[in-house]
Amino acid sequence: MSGERADKLAALAAEEGLDQLIVGDLVRPGDSGPDAIANIRWLTGFTGTSGLALVGKDVRDFITDFRYTERAEREVDPTFERVIAVQRIVPELVSRLRGKVGYDDALTSVASLRRIEQSADPSVELVAVTGLPERLRRTKDEGEQEAIAAAARVADRAYEFVIEQGFRGRTERELARLAEGKMRELGAEPSFPTIVASGPNGALPHAEPSDRVVEDGDLVVFDMGAKLEGYCSDCTRTFAVGKISAEAREAYELVRTAQQAGLDAIRAGVGGAEADEAARKVIRDAGMGDRFGHGLGHGVGLEVHEAPRLGQKSEDTLEAGNVVSVEPGVYIPGEFGIRIEDLVVVTEDGHRNLSGVPKELTVVE
Amino acid sequence: MSGERADKLAALAAEEGLDQLIVGDLVRPGDSGPDAIANIRWLTGFTGTSGLALVGKDVRDFITDFRYTERAEREVDPTFERVIAVQRIVPELVSRLRGKVGYDDALTSVASLRRIEQSADPSVELVAVTGLPERLRRTKDEGEQEAIAAAARVADRAYEFVIEQGFRGRTERELARLAEGKMRELGAEPSFPTIVASGPNGALPHAEPSDRVVEDGDLVVFDMGAKLEGYCSDCTRTFAVGKISAEAREAYELVRTAQQAGLDAIRAGVGGAEADEAARKVIRDAGMGDRFGHGLGHGVGLEVHEAPRLGQKSEDTLEAGNVVSVEPGVYIPGEFGIRIEDLVVVTEDGHRNLSGVPKELTVVE
Repeated sequence: MSGERADKLAALAAEEGLDQLIVGDLVRPGDSGPDAIANIRWLTGFTGTSGLALVGKDVRDFITDFRYTERAEREVDPTFERVIAVQRIVPELVSRLRGKVGYDDALTSVASLRRIEQSADPSVELVAVTGLPERLRRTKDEGEQEAIAAAARVADRAYEFVIEQGFRGRTERELARLAEGKMRELGAEPSFPTIVASGPNGALPHAEPSDRVVEDGDLVVFDMGAKLEGYCSDCTRTFAVGKISAEAREAYELVRTAQQAGLDAIRAGVGGAEADEAARKVIRDAGMGDRFGHGLGHGVGLEVHEAPRLGQKSEDTLEAGNVVSVEPGVYIPGEFGIRIEDLVVVTEDGHRNLSGVPKELTVVE
Repeated sequence: MSGERADKLAALAAEEGLDQLIVGDLVRPGDSGPDAIANIRWLTGFTGTSGLALVGKDVRDFITDFRYTERAEREVDPTFERVIAVQRIVPELVSRLRGKVGYDDALTSVASLRRIEQSADPSVELVAVTGLPERLRRTKDEGEQEAIAAAARVADRAYEFVIEQGFRGRTERELARLAEGKMRELGAEPSFPTIVASGPNGALPHAEPSDRVVEDGDLVVFDMGAKLEGYCSDCTRTFAVGKISAEAREAYELVRTAQQAGLDAIRAGVGGAEADEAARKVIRDAGMGDRFGHGLGHGVGLEVHEAPRLGQKSEDTLEAGNVVSVEPGVYIPGEFGIRIEDLVVVTEDGHRNLSGVPKELTVVE
């Protein structure tokens, strides 16, 4: 890492007219959930649940508490000064604020801001900014791309495993547990709670596997990802159990064609709305436009949903090094749902697909 | 549930001079982490990740989005009006605000507050309040006590399982994985990442199991809990592997005596600081006062750390129906650590212990 990310972020903060930028979770600063610390991990390498950073022209401070002395020593980018707060980390941060200081208003609670305002030097001017590290996190460097690819390989192996076990007669919940167990056995965690939605459940937007037993003739939407060394993957496949209806088979091929059209549209310079339209057009032209009620995809990295977005209202433009999901679907209420999702790295002239599970309709036992 | 909790909360809000109280996560309102929704779950029964409630003299509104239509129908207390937001849930909430409205400043981001202020009716007065539902959540009703007891039994069984498997030759990480696998097999999730700290690691405040192989003569601090139907348990035991030193054995008995003294002090009306002192005195009198660097315990419920607190600076007073941990420890840097923790329900004249794993020094293979 050696300070490159911090240098880029400091430059971006300076462009915004800031002397310093606070990075980290100011909602539960000493006890953050694992997902609240993505910016800190990206910026400094620190993986603990208590960390704040201050970045500016002449400042690279990382603040944690005594529980993490050893971990900070081991993990944090050496261009940062490592500060172990005697008591709480926010007062330690506040004592270091100077000039015009940016804080992320989406990651700062009203209570934290009030406390900072009351205790900062009167010369400090606090300015709300949104998503500066997130803007840089869109572009994944080679190490990050490899980390996401490794997480995607774990999910691929979990798919192979559940296909081998067979679906028929198992509940959705049992299948989800088998898949998650496999990912854990491979040293990963699920990057989000696994979705297994069979038969008519496949058409529901709800996310939780039920006690429904998978039976002959079902389509089964299986949406899962692994998290490895902090980086997420995300992959959806829809499987057929035994013999499915001609209507379901036709819809599957439609989604597969649309997904390929989406993939074909992906390259640097293309808009998120444009990529969405490439896939959506295929489904609309088949008269199923109203059966595809969500966006085409989203960025994936330290968080399973991050920028850029691929959807009808997206104003994002794809850049080389973005990692995005491409996941059109068709949902027929009361009957079935189909979604096919790959994870790809955007390149100058196309994409590199990280998802290895075949997309031909797979019939499982 | 049938509205009782909402009635109590509305009464508490009225005492604070509020016409309405907003309940729920206003940091990531449509995509809350599982831990951010404890207040909503307690108040309404809803278990999804997108829900806000509004409570006041004449109002019981619950707002979610289309993904959760069916779940809201099934789970939410019928005294609430269930509102499915057409787009996002915050604008739907804002359109319903009237008069003097309380919001929790610790659970509201600066960005969310600004958005609410800009779009609410000009007659609405927003007032920061902190932790009103949390104040009521301290007292667990019978159903909640039973849910926590059930989670504690799962952790007990996971302890039995890992003791049977044996410790010697396994890494801390492997032992943690075995315990968590058992809890999952029993239909639960870990309520927090399991701590397994062996030998000198037991004295470190770090929380993550390492690749250290457990060997003969080690003390092993094992701290874990289960989460079942939303409710958490928390239990720590320290095991001996083979033959341990006389010093370690003596320290173990000291902590066990201190833990019993802590338990003996627990009953309704006792202060959190008073209970802490009962256990701490035993350790201090043995000349080890500076080896016990944390508080005696904390409340446990929908969150694994909640009110009331048991510690030197606590201003809480125990009440019947509180569920708290009692967990003194002694940590000798470079050598070993010992912590023994039970989970108990506070009663009028004592406590009911929910942790079933024996506390005599257990020698494992």
